[in-house]
This record gives sequence, structure tokens and C-alpha cells, in this order.
Amino acid sequence: MAKRIDAWGSEAITNYEHVFKEFGLKKFPEAIAKELKHRFFERGIVIAHRDFEKVSNCIKTKKPFINMTGIAASGTYHLGHKVDIDLFKFFKDNGAKNLFAVCDLDAYCSREKVQTLDAAKKIAVSNIADALALGLEEQDIYLQSKKPARYYTLAFEVSKKITSATNKAIYGEIDLGKVGANILQYADILHGQLPEFYGKMPSVTGIGLDQDPHARATRDIAKRLPYSLETPSFIYFKHESGLMEGSKMSSSNPDTAIFLNDSPKEVERKIKKAFTGGRNTLEEHRKLGGVLKVDKVYEMLLFHYPNSKELAKIADEFSIGKMLSREMKEIAIEFFQGFLKEHQRKAKEAMPIAQKIVFS
Amino acid sequence: MAKRIDAWGSEAITNYEHVFKEFGLKKFPEAIAKELKHRFFERGIVIAHRDFEKVSNCIKTKKPFINMTGIAASGTYHLGHKVDIDLFKFFKDNGAKNLFAVCDLDAYCSREKVQTLDAAKKIAVSNIADALALGLEEQDIYLQSKKPARYYTLAFEVSKKITSATNKAIYGEIDLGKVGANILQYADILHGQLPEFYGKMPSVTGIGLDQDPHARATRDIAKRLPYSLETPSFIYFKHESGLMEGSKMSSSNPDTAIFLNDSPKEVERKIKKAFTGGRNTLEEHRKLGGVLKVDKVYEMLLFHYPNSKELAKIADEFSIGKMLSREMKEIAIEFFQGFLKEHQRKAKEAMPIAQKIVFS
Repeated sequence: MAKRIDAWGSEAITNYEHVFKEFGLKKFPEAIAKELKHRFFERGIVIAHRDFEKVSNCIKTKKPFINMTGIAASGTYHLGHKVDIDLFKFFKDNGAKNLFAVCDLDAYCSREKVQTLDAAKKIAVSNIADALALGLEEQDIYLQSKKPARYYTLAFEVSKKITSATNKAIYGEIDLGKVGANILQYADILHGQLPEFYGKMPSVTGIGLDQDPHARATRDIAKRLPYSLETPSFIYFKHESGLMEGSKMSSSNPDTAIFLNDSPKEVERKIKKAFTGGRNTLEEHRKLGGVLKVDKVYEMLLFHYPNSKELAKIADEFSIGKMLSREMKEIAIEFFQGFLKEHQRKAKEAMPIAQKIVFS
Repeated sequence: MAKRIDAWGSEAITNYEHVFKEFGLKKFPEAIAKELKHRFFERGIVIAHRDFEKVSNCIKTKKPFINMTGIAASGTYHLGHKVDIDLFKFFKDNGAKNLFAVCDLDAYCSREKVQTLDAAKKIAVSNIADALALGLEEQDIYLQSKKPARYYTLAFEVSKKITSATNKAIYGEIDLGKVGANILQYADILHGQLPEFYGKMPSVTGIGLDQDPHARATRDIAKRLPYSLETPSFIYFKHESGLMEGSKMSSSNPDTAIFLNDSPKEVERKIKKAFTGGRNTLEEHRKLGGVLKVDKVYEMLLFHYPNSKELAKIADEFSIGKMLSREMKEIAIEFFQGFLKEHQRKAKEAMPIAQKIVFS
């Protein structure tokens, strides 16, 4: 018999129980999630946090806080990056001091395929145009390689606050370029609190669960630097997987993700190819219902489809076998094609500002 | 019988034979040493080099070259630092493009005793005043923590060009602060050749023999960066030892060195206490002569006393037993007291510029 499940119920979160136990992360509090009124919180996409209460108090009491996110400028943004930027936009809209890092230097340091800093800067232009199209403004964004000296001096100060033993415990034996990239990331998260930037205040950064060791190190460094910084807060996303079974969204395999510059045809092709929770035969599907929790198309909608009521209906109908995979794919194709058409128009419009941020 | 020796003969250099064999360093060519007309070259204080011909050709043909030296801002300068600065001044006077790095950030990163970046900056002020008093000018000097972004981005680019294996082979297992300091030093030596600074040209940096692994790494990195830089040249000083037997000049033991802010009384006390090559009894000294090569007072004069003719006479008279240690000490006390009095006057005068370089 087909079993009804919540559209964004507790089932998926159960898979994450071990991270709460293992790492001392806290489950994202339901009461706060309700207050925040955003699909990421309502749908359990943000599932955990460290010290987020500090930031939600700032939002409530209209006190300043820093909204910090960084993305390596190593390739075209895909829907996974849109999640980071949508969350950033949410905090921006809630009164944050914004720091959106376009990490050209970090990408160059840590990634073999980015062979020169200039190559990273060229990627940065298209990344910034995408970020602007997703609702960020020029003043929210910085290019890592164009910061004032104080940012870099903090990065070097940070290097003094990590022993090689700690570094090895977190990252294993890594090349110095990767060490450099990590140190830049610590500085990205912490520099906003220096008096030369926004000054001491709570800060929030959204990351994947796999980045928690890095978050813990950042919090530790914040305490060890001689500036009595607020320990930065982190919130943790559920992992958004790739379009094929068992895959990760990845720039190196374009079929695993929808990129923000994909054509309508590409969108259609990729979604049609995506792994679903549909049954082997129509008869079976009608009888047993679709398996929502493995359905990649549904996952895309869960992360990106704005209308929660409609999404709940899709979830319901698919899980009781009333909606077929093909039908859900049609909804997704129409939605993402429409979204990307508008997005690409905006991104094109934003190119001159993006060029200016990188090259002026 | 007393044995006459050259004031700055080959004897001391013999001790360094192994470094030529072991590291592939070249002996500093006598012909070039003669042309350069400076006590460091005439007296064999600069004993080895890598690719110095490139720089001496620039001097001869009046082509541009970079003169780069850096000193960690970790304490008051002593006579050992004066050697670095005197050499720097020599190349400055020979038409170089100058880069004198006052390494506040590097000192903070790598030295436990420098507990904040602000503490390093305070030290930097007195260091810069000393450098100015020794003949450098404001435009020759930069504070590491106040460079434009391009300097720091190069430092991070450098990090990509060293594997952790190479790093470990050169330095052993070191903390990340020390890695950071090394990376800054590579950037110090190389950044002058970027188009944003002086542009591609030969460069020279004077270092101690013990720093050769660092020099080799820098040369290797220059080749691996995507900027087709000139491989930097290095010249190598003989080690100037401390005032006491077997000691190294060190800020942590003030009696091992004469500091540029020492009072006349301190100078007298330290020189009187210094280890000499004088014999145990007057009779023995007259008969066998002093042992010049272990005499710390003579070593100080060799490195700093400007008049080569007078110095040769001192060497001669001491080594044949005509001059006593006490007498050589009197000459040294008078010389260094006189030098420091004038130096300290100039350094005091230079303080406002030094303050400006660090804090404006």
C-alpha cells in the first residue's frame, strides 16, 4: 500500500542523527525555523546549527549581524550554489551586514584545474553576474584577491593560531596551496568583525555538514585571536545530491547538476535523465506510490520550488501513486526553464557590474 | 713564532669549503669582488653566490635590478642587522630598485615572543628609524603588513607552488605560522618583478649561508610561477658570531651583540667582556702573537670598521703580538661609541618618518 509521507518530514533528518551525536551539532530548533519563514527552514533543508540563537536574536531585535558566505571561483554556478546564495539573500533581506566572498584566490590555491589567478578572475566575473541576478547587490560582494591589506594580514595572523598537528587532524596531509585556501576561508569568516570592517558582532555562515570540522576550527581560531571576536555561528544544509543515482552535484560531471547557464534543451535533457523514485511499471507505481525520498527531481523541487502548498500537493500525489515521474519531470522542466530564462537575462544585464567588481 | 696572516685572507673561507660542495653554491668571484669596492667584498665577508653575475652585469651596464632584503621586526637591531642594511645601502648606491622589507607580519607569524601584530608594528618603528639612520630613504622601505593586495595574492599563489613534501624536506615539521612567514618571505623576494611593482629584472638578496635552502626554494618557485620571472640571485655572508665564545648574536641574550641603541657604557662593558684571541700572559702574547681568527673584537672590526688600511695594520700588529687585546678593544670601543652616538642622533631624527611609514 502506498504510504503517505510528509513533504519535508522527519524521515530524511533521521539519516543525520549521527552527526548530532558525533560532532555536537544541534538540531535546528523548530520554533526558530517557523519564525524565519523561508523554504530552507520550513522544509528542514537547514537541519543543524552552532550558536544560531545569537543571530536569530539579532534578527528579532534588529541588531546588526554579519551574513558571510563564500564560493570558490572554480566553475560555473549550478543549483547547489544557488542554495548558498538564496540563503545569503534571505539574511540580507533580514537586515544583515553582508559579505559575499567570490573566492578567486582560494580557488587558484587549492584547485589543480585553476591554473592561473587570472583564470580564476575570469570565472569570478560570471559567478558575480549570477550572484547579482539572484538578488545580491554590488556592495554585498567582494573578490578575495582585491581586499585591503587588513584582510590578508588577518589571514596570516590566523596561520599562527593553528598548529600543524591540528591542521593534520582536520585535513590530513595537504599541500600548502590547500593550507593557504583554508587560511583565506578562516579570514573570510572572521575579518568582518575587525574594527576596520563591520566591527565585533555575531555572524552566520551556511555550510554543508561535511564542512563542520572547518567550522569548528574557525570558531576555535576566533577565540584564540587577540581581538575578543564573537564566536561565529554556523547553520548546516542537508546535502543536495546530484541528478543521477548516488551522484554529487559536480562541475566536473555536467550531467549531475543543472548549471545556471544551461539552455532550456539541456534542462530538459538532464531532468528527463534524472534518477526518480518511480516504480518499474505503471501498475506498480499506481499501487505502491513513488518513493519520494530517493527522487532526485523531487529533491530539486524541494530545494528550489518556491510554492510550498503546490509542492506539498506534488509530494502527496507522487507518494500515493497518483502522479507519475514523467509528470513531476514536466513540472520541474517547466519551472527550471522559466526560472533560468529570467535568471540568464538578469545575469547578462549584470555583466558590466561584475566586470567592474573584478577588473576595475 | 708569531705567524703573519692576511687580514681577510682565505683561512676563514676554508671552513666553508663544504658548503660549496654540498649545496652547489659558487665562491664569490675575486674579480667581481675587486670591482665592487666595498669592505664586504674586499674582506671576503661575502663569500658565495648564486647567479650574482646577472646583477654585477646590471651594475656595470647601468641596467635596472632589484635590491631586496628583509628583516623580521622582532627586536632592536644589532650590528648583525647593520651588515644587512650596509649591503643593501651599497646596492642602493649602485643604482638598484630598492625593496627593504620590515617584516612585522612575518615576525608575528613565526615568533612566539611577538604576541600581537601591533607589538610587531611598534618594533617596526624603531627598526625603520635605524634603517633610515643607516642611509636608507622612505621610498626604499616597506612595512610587510601595509602592502597592496597584489603582494599578498602573490604570497598565496606561492603557496600553491610548494608541496607539503618539499616544505617538510626544507624545514621539517613546522607550525602553520612558520609556513606563513616563509611564504611571505618568498613573496618579499619575488613580488618586485611583477608588472604591478618594478617589473621583470634580476634581483639580489644577501643572506646567511644557513638560509640557502630557503634561497633554493625561492629560485625554484620563481621558475614555477606563471610569470616567467628572472630567477633571483643571492649572495652569502660569512656568519658574524656573537661577542662571547661560541655564541650567536641574539636579541634574547643582549651580551652577545652590540645593539644600535646601546649606550656608550654598554658598548664599553660588552667589548671589554668579549672573547679575544689574546694569549694567557703578556709574555706569551708578545712571543706567539694573538689568534686573530677567534678574536670577536677583530671580527666586529672586520665587519664594520671602514678604513681597510688601518684595519690591516691592526690585524698585522695583533697577530705578531705587537698589539694587545686591551689595545684592540680600546680602538673598538672608541669606534663603536663614536659610530653609535652619531647613529642614535640620526635615528631619533628619523622617528617621525618611521612613525609615518608604520602608522599613517
